[in-house]
Amino acid sequence: MGERTEILVCIKCKRGTDVTDDGERPGQRLFDELQARGLPEGLDLRAVECLQNCDSGCSVALRGGGDKWTYLYGNLHEASHLDTLIEGAALYHETSDGLIPWRTRPEHFKRNCIARIPPLEDNNG
Amino acid sequence: MGERTEILVCIKCKRGTDVTDDGERPGQRLFDELQARGLPEGLDLRAVECLQNCDSGCSVALRGGGDKWTYLYGNLHEASHLDTLIEGAALYHETSDGLIPWRTRPEHFKRNCIARIPPLEDNNG
Repeated sequence: MGERTEILVCIKCKRGTDVTDDGERPGQRLFDELQARGLPEGLDLRAVECLQNCDSGCSVALRGGGDKWTYLYGNLHEASHLDTLIEGAALYHETSDGLIPWRTRPEHFKRNCIARIPPLEDNNG
Repeated sequence: MGERTEILVCIKCKRGTDVTDDGERPGQRLFDELQARGLPEGLDLRAVECLQNCDSGCSVALRGGGDKWTYLYGNLHEASHLDTLIEGAALYHETSDGLIPWRTRPEHFKRNCIARIPPLEDNNG
């Protein structure tokens, strides 16, 4: 473990809905719900302005320092994916390289990985 | 500038083609063509095993250290996108935060950004 894990939530996400610029956005609601729920030890919530995954929002990235792969997940909904997101983030946090073993990886993560970015170090796992 | 810029190429990409496991993959060809072409000062080419953007390959990520947004671009072809990719990577390298001004951003980058990951520092630009 070592480094803390960031849950980067795109708070600008409209998820295809017709939200006015003044209205509350699904991405902001996802962030608010996660904040209200509280996170396990070692995980930090961070609001981000647009992860540019607009076609498959809401979007969240998991990042755990330079030794881990960074993962971007999409198609998240604040009403139905809070538990799986927190569970998956905790599993990610427990890994040394960011790779959650397939058999324990949440179903939503298996099917909605948008992309991943390798560790800074030469460690392509 | 400061830090060097990595061009992370997914060498496993099949780009929807029917490549056997022993055959040469489009992602590997993209990497080889970039390597043969040579890159401007400050840019490093790095092969990566699967960026998990398989639906929109070939894929390349641009990363420039902890102060910049990391960008992932898709739908790249080794036969037609070498110039725009190298030009775009050089423009990215010249920025302080990874944000290429819209008017100078290559057309392919405008239309094929898969996602972006924020800087490590608190800089949501």
